[in-house]
Amino acid sequence: MSDRPASTKVTVDLGERSYNILIGTGLIERAGDYLAKVTPARRVVIVTDENVALHWLETLEIALTRANYQILIRILKPGEQTKSLEQIDALTDWMLESGIDRKTTIIALGGGVIGDLAGFAAAITLRGLPFIQIPTTLLAQVDSSVGGKTAVDTRHGKNLIGAFYQPLLVLADIDTLSTLPARQVAAGYSEIVKYGLINDPSFFEWCEVNGHAVLNGDEAAARSAIEMSCRAKAAIVAADEYERDKRALLNLGHTFGHAFEVEAGFHDLLLHGEAVALGTLCAFELSRRLGFCPGQDAERVRSHFTEVGLPTNLDGIAEAHWTPDVILAHMGKDKKTEGDNLTFILARGIGQAYIETDVPAEALRVLLSDLLLT
Amino acid sequence: MSDRPASTKVTVDLGERSYNILIGTGLIERAGDYLAKVTPARRVVIVTDENVALHWLETLEIALTRANYQILIRILKPGEQTKSLEQIDALTDWMLESGIDRKTTIIALGGGVIGDLAGFAAAITLRGLPFIQIPTTLLAQVDSSVGGKTAVDTRHGKNLIGAFYQPLLVLADIDTLSTLPARQVAAGYSEIVKYGLINDPSFFEWCEVNGHAVLNGDEAAARSAIEMSCRAKAAIVAADEYERDKRALLNLGHTFGHAFEVEAGFHDLLLHGEAVALGTLCAFELSRRLGFCPGQDAERVRSHFTEVGLPTNLDGIAEAHWTPDVILAHMGKDKKTEGDNLTFILARGIGQAYIETDVPAEALRVLLSDLLLT
Repeated sequence: MSDRPASTKVTVDLGERSYNILIGTGLIERAGDYLAKVTPARRVVIVTDENVALHWLETLEIALTRANYQILIRILKPGEQTKSLEQIDALTDWMLESGIDRKTTIIALGGGVIGDLAGFAAAITLRGLPFIQIPTTLLAQVDSSVGGKTAVDTRHGKNLIGAFYQPLLVLADIDTLSTLPARQVAAGYSEIVKYGLINDPSFFEWCEVNGHAVLNGDEAAARSAIEMSCRAKAAIVAADEYERDKRALLNLGHTFGHAFEVEAGFHDLLLHGEAVALGTLCAFELSRRLGFCPGQDAERVRSHFTEVGLPTNLDGIAEAHWTPDVILAHMGKDKKTEGDNLTFILARGIGQAYIETDVPAEALRVLLSDLLLT
Repeated sequence: MSDRPASTKVTVDLGERSYNILIGTGLIERAGDYLAKVTPARRVVIVTDENVALHWLETLEIALTRANYQILIRILKPGEQTKSLEQIDALTDWMLESGIDRKTTIIALGGGVIGDLAGFAAAITLRGLPFIQIPTTLLAQVDSSVGGKTAVDTRHGKNLIGAFYQPLLVLADIDTLSTLPARQVAAGYSEIVKYGLINDPSFFEWCEVNGHAVLNGDEAAARSAIEMSCRAKAAIVAADEYERDKRALLNLGHTFGHAFEVEAGFHDLLLHGEAVALGTLCAFELSRRLGFCPGQDAERVRSHFTEVGLPTNLDGIAEAHWTPDVILAHMGKDKKTEGDNLTFILARGIGQAYIETDVPAEALRVLLSDLLLT
């Protein structure tokens, strides 16, 4: 392993809750060493899913056993359905039954679902256990594992019950991307592009040049993309940990995206990253129609998404029950709603996202009608 | 109301999470004015129980209606059984169904059970809603409403699932004590004495002189006792919000007390404050037997508890199933446990509590045997 390049470190600066994100290869194989530096635990709970367990659980177990950790393992069903209060009840009950104490460290080994669920369980068990993220999807590495948002879904919507709870360490091991289906990589890529679209036009240009390399498993390209994404997210989170203002920019594409996901029933029919890609196109199109964003910028985003194979319309996804009213109703229940106004992240151009609280309902309805009819 | 003395203010100093505790009379009648100063909400959720609702809900409703708040009300069954994940699921589901948003403010109107439950619901709904405590028991006013600990119980023990989540304001209205049964007032008083025993011998002396006045409903005495208790707790919480070290001192009497409560099944048979009183006597007795605490100090605590009518033994409480092993097992599952050692708060004398991590198990067993046989 010594001939491998050292990992890249990105620090999330949150005072006494600061932590590092390590990005590189072979990180899971060395997890025991990294863990020992951030937590006094001798006992760990690994929370993972059946798919990830097949590829990475043994590697992690060997690494932690070698470092003399006692290991408890919880393998869950993959998929968004796992992100429920029922699972939280069952997971926390099992942990308490197993005799965990306040130093027992929870490790999330998996994608966003596992990270959100295990992180929320860590946040509320004994009022907070040490927590480590080992994201194994591109989406989790560039977005959900960074910044401390944890949550589960309810029948009223996605991520409605949760907590802000920061990990002690994030290990983003690029090796895991080799076992990830191409469609999952592409879905994760949509969150990478997002950082360019929010406030970094030159990073969007980088994506236009290097996007294919990231999607094709080029290690250097993936590492750069993850690093730049984590730096971008860390800066925003450090400025506004609890989403009182500018952190909301990270929700670019997410108000639309959440509504699509709810209606799709959180199935493989529409992955979260795909929903975000569609939502981002909606946000740029709405910005264009309202006269805030130049048409060529909106078109450039659409072209890039088309080129890398992200969905750009709802063909094969939307069914008869997807009416504009239904989608609008889902947006109304999104937790970013305040009072009677819907809050949208719109853009004045590529790299110029902003928070718009006063979108005319009619423009929104017309946009959704057009989208659903094409 | 203008002829009433102004309320006393105690500030809990936690940086951006700082807040005030107001102590006085007529505070619920003026709740609308106080609320407007700390939250932009136009909508509030009042969480209370059937007993408190009888006495105080109408007063609060009138006050908030006059201030033009929209009010949602949730009235729960009184008692520790309400502090469950099932209730959290039901409460959060109902709030989301009611269309709350991120500014909707949760008000806990009640004792420790309501405060802990509503506070935890506020902590995790939409990842954190504005939260106000209106404690209506002496115990909640001097302890549970201050410092941000929220939680529910599980089948493995008390307060095992929860969060540190600070309120925006605490209104400790002394008027509520007039509708509280005397036994409840006495139980709350045990947490007041605790502050003297931890680190303030002169406050313990004050209690020896004024304890009866507090218990007999003397307003000035109650106000002083609540103020001194809140100041003591605020100082400890400000120094150690997340209980990494000295906040644990507030658990004086609680490791024993929790174990007794678990075995009593959280019934009216043994109130929390009564369990704490018994636990405090156990802590002083254990300290005496281990040679840490002078016998006369342990005796002085026992005398004061006897004098004010707090329980000093388990007569009429413990049944055949209360064996030392059973009680010890409950202590082992208390969340203050770390690794194999039990942590106890012991005392070198009145006002000299400290954290002892190395209590001989045999001394503990003998103490419990003696207690259960008398």
